Amino acid sequence: MNIINGKQIQEQKLKFISKNISKIKDTLKLVVIQVGDNEASNVYIKNKQKICEKVGILFEHIKYDKINEAKLIERIEELNTDKSVTGILVQLPLPKDINEKRVIDAIHPLKDVDGLTTVNLGNLFSGNKGLVPCTALGVLEILKSINAPIEGSNVVIVGRSRLVGLPLSGLLLRENATVTICHSKTKDLKEKTKQADILIVAIGKKQLIKESYIKENAIVIDVGINREEGKLYGDCDFENIKDKCNAITPVPNGVGPLTVTMLINNIIEAYNLQKNN
Amino acid sequence: MNIINGKQIQEQKLKFISKNISKIKDTLKLVVIQVGDNEASNVYIKNKQKICEKVGILFEHIKYDKINEAKLIERIEELNTDKSVTGILVQLPLPKDINEKRVIDAIHPLKDVDGLTTVNLGNLFSGNKGLVPCTALGVLEILKSINAPIEGSNVVIVGRSRLVGLPLSGLLLRENATVTICHSKTKDLKEKTKQADILIVAIGKKQLIKESYIKENAIVIDVGINREEGKLYGDCDFENIKDKCNAITPVPNGVGPLTVTMLINNIIEAYNLQKNN
Repeated sequence: MNIINGKQIQEQKLKFISKNISKIKDTLKLVVIQVGDNEASNVYIKNKQKICEKVGILFEHIKYDKINEAKLIERIEELNTDKSVTGILVQLPLPKDINEKRVIDAIHPLKDVDGLTTVNLGNLFSGNKGLVPCTALGVLEILKSINAPIEGSNVVIVGRSRLVGLPLSGLLLRENATVTICHSKTKDLKEKTKQADILIVAIGKKQLIKESYIKENAIVIDVGINREEGKLYGDCDFENIKDKCNAITPVPNGVGPLTVTMLINNIIEAYNLQKNN
Repeated sequence: MNIINGKQIQEQKLKFISKNISKIKDTLKLVVIQVGDNEASNVYIKNKQKICEKVGILFEHIKYDKINEAKLIERIEELNTDKSVTGILVQLPLPKDINEKRVIDAIHPLKDVDGLTTVNLGNLFSGNKGLVPCTALGVLEILKSINAPIEGSNVVIVGRSRLVGLPLSGLLLRENATVTICHSKTKDLKEKTKQADILIVAIGKKQLIKESYIKENAIVIDVGINREEGKLYGDCDFENIKDKCNAITPVPNGVGPLTVTMLINNIIEAYNLQKNN
């Protein structure tokens, strides 16, 4: 049993990324747009700012107390054509009177460093080059860093969110895995997860996955973050299953550290895609 | 055991479609663009013309002996803005010196009645309204016409093509099935297909699926069309497995008749999407 050290993988990846950035003569810049003052959003944005500064990417935070959808889209369109801007990220959630899909889809696909536009989802499943959501990329990065055999493997993904499960199914199909997508409507979930060589859980239910859900020697990636009385829990019952796994990510310090790292990766990727366009 | 009659389902669907068309005051028009003189393409285009004429949709066939990519895309862009044109379809394959992806993606997503643009693939997986490839829609139509229980069912799709397997995975996820996608790199295919409540095979290998691949009382949809010495074979060994299935589509006269029918469905859908845009 191997407890995967997300922090360590993050550090290796960041070294690699910093080297890539140092080769780029232009200045990279990320613009994060926030509407309102959601507390969790404030923390996430701070983390993004920190890592950008660490690797030498300019960071601009545009914060609106209030703005209507049309004006917000107008602002995004200005940033789309602003050559000094490499990546644009709209921090979610937006206030309820704003249509998130319309706003996200206003971002130019080549600046969409969160990989959330409809075009980039289409690119992923079409096998085109494009930008992919950071957490999904982070999971793939972990699997590659531990040399997990993906091609031909049975990968079971629990959860089909736009941020994690859905793009991961596309990414892992590309890597020639046999992919099963489970979700809240799946009957007899245990029957499915027990067959996984690689099990990825991203459904947001505290400790849903117990020892009986796991095949001997499976690789388990736990994307869940469930807060309870100030403590963090994954979607897997870590203590209960860890000895049965070949490798498993803990919560915290598993997938988490990779997410913001892959954002930096996406900013470089966006730069390269824009160069070649 | 129930042998699904594709022709009969087609006729019912066409009645329903004709009723819908008669309610539309505008004239619908499909433009099919062909480059070269591929014999199979000629047949497919004739079939599309016939059914359009049958239901009262104008049909225009633009045929180039030769044209370069830039000029072809220019022509598509003219058709995109031509208000008399409801749907545009580029008959594949195109000559090798033309990039099919770029040409297809030049079609306006709301006129893309083959559902092949990157944006429409993104729409499908995002849960947005959009146009979906006809054969995938045809399979869903068959499942619905026989009242197959989809939600929570184990659906196994063999094949991940842009025309069938891939869009079907998106369609059936939307219908809350638990979806497994198998392909040429899948290890122990039989192990996967044996678990399917609904098995959809679209991999283009003559009679690949034998009796031992099937769960008792499964619903089997065979999308394969393999020609050998003038005869058509599906991807399933029909005679060998039919008695074990709850229902099964034959080849020919299973999924085939639905494909061109769903094209008509897509032309109406395109008209409605354009109206509401």
